Amino acid sequence: MSAPIRIGVFDSGVGGLSVLRHLITELPHVQYIYVGDTARVPYGNKSVATIAHYAAQSATFLRSKGVDMIVVACNTVSAAALDIVEAIAEVPVVGMIQPAARAALERSPSKRIGVIGTRATIESDAYALALYAHGGTENVTVVQHACPLLVALAEEGWLAHPATLAIIEEYLRPLLDQAVDTIILGCTHFPLLAEAIEQVAPVALIDPGYWATRHVKRLLGEQSLPQQRSPRTARVEYYVTDVPTNFAAVARQFLGFEIGQPHRLSLEEIVPISAE
Amino acid sequence: MSAPIRIGVFDSGVGGLSVLRHLITELPHVQYIYVGDTARVPYGNKSVATIAHYAAQSATFLRSKGVDMIVVACNTVSAAALDIVEAIAEVPVVGMIQPAARAALERSPSKRIGVIGTRATIESDAYALALYAHGGTENVTVVQHACPLLVALAEEGWLAHPATLAIIEEYLRPLLDQAVDTIILGCTHFPLLAEAIEQVAPVALIDPGYWATRHVKRLLGEQSLPQQRSPRTARVEYYVTDVPTNFAAVARQFLGFEIGQPHRLSLEEIVPISAE
Repeated sequence: MSAPIRIGVFDSGVGGLSVLRHLITELPHVQYIYVGDTARVPYGNKSVATIAHYAAQSATFLRSKGVDMIVVACNTVSAAALDIVEAIAEVPVVGMIQPAARAALERSPSKRIGVIGTRATIESDAYALALYAHGGTENVTVVQHACPLLVALAEEGWLAHPATLAIIEEYLRPLLDQAVDTIILGCTHFPLLAEAIEQVAPVALIDPGYWATRHVKRLLGEQSLPQQRSPRTARVEYYVTDVPTNFAAVARQFLGFEIGQPHRLSLEEIVPISAE
Repeated sequence: MSAPIRIGVFDSGVGGLSVLRHLITELPHVQYIYVGDTARVPYGNKSVATIAHYAAQSATFLRSKGVDMIVVACNTVSAAALDIVEAIAEVPVVGMIQPAARAALERSPSKRIGVIGTRATIESDAYALALYAHGGTENVTVVQHACPLLVALAEEGWLAHPATLAIIEEYLRPLLDQAVDTIILGCTHFPLLAEAIEQVAPVALIDPGYWATRHVKRLLGEQSLPQQRSPRTARVEYYVTDVPTNFAAVARQFLGFEIGQPHRLSLEEIVPISAE
């Protein structure tokens, strides 16, 4: 038997657990190392320079762990700083943007596609550039909107509250006015709000974590065979930079089940390995 | 002429500018050094250990600047980690909790007092302990509620949105059910929502930044004399750990006017001076 494949997964906090959930469901026999930078979360309102600095520290840590692949389970990092992760990683890197953009183009009859995410993700134009690159600027219309309040609502678990629906309605109005038929949920927190979003918007929703997982599966040469392990028995080491009192509850929200006590990690002390 | 008084003011981010606004209004001739840890903001959902670590770094930086006093313009730090700031500072330290608790007790006829704040502030019980200590447990009733969504709403500038009012109504219901007549706005972001809160709750509101400023004034032995300088000409050096794209707009929201380009500061590299 060969050694098991080891995949490093990192995020600004607990949101990436919604991506890990897809990974352990589809690929439960892989070993995972999850890094959540909960001491500095969120990244979505921060500058590109700071996001890149933090991402480099997570990538450097995962490289030191000798993983075979890195999944950037954070749309903000995937949008603003994937290049620095690729420069550090020395192994294949899968981000959230490209697989989701391809899936949206395949699924959208009108090619009028909406993108919602954090401020940093939307300002990067990463999704729009990917959609235009794969679909052609003449064929594709992209309507983007930053939705920072949805992050807080998802973390608080206000998934079906009337205030949540009112906020979603306001955020999605510019997208629906432009008659998009597909919306990319460009933040790991947003799949938790999928039902609320579907109540407001009669469109197809794209969960980048799911499509990134399918891409990982292809890279590993995996068939869609029944897996022998269940997701809950997948081997995951959890590293977080802070364990706030509500950590267990929020983690359950994103992952779907309890995790044990995570390891504490100080990313601040990690000096990124030079990309040269 | 003697050298001007120099006061260090620090916060997890831009929220403390709502406190600085009171300081420069009441004491415009003082020189201020403002530190906002915008690269790691917010603190309110983080653990006490992490909050204390970050606060120690800000206090160490301000000590190195030779300030005459430190104002902890962050309710979360004031509630969870004032002791470590006092141990490092070597100068008087003014936090948000004690002045606000005294003001609430003076102003509340029924002594039924509500406190809203971040999760970390409410879990620390710092306001409740101060209210009971000054007012007596037999005379005072304290009803506390963590309101994390209000932080995001204030930063987004949704100050009078119907969704904001609905969220405030839900958060304040347990306080109003207990018939509080006074509410302490135990987070620097909440004074921005004072009008919305007043629409929902017919109570007196206590802004800790204002009462902390009055306390600073007493410590400095200042009379309430007309000041020769206007707040806008007060000398303030701004240090922040990140400058996101929306920084100027959010800062204006809290301070009431534009500030110039702030200095960049890396708090991560600052090793707190031992308190021993």
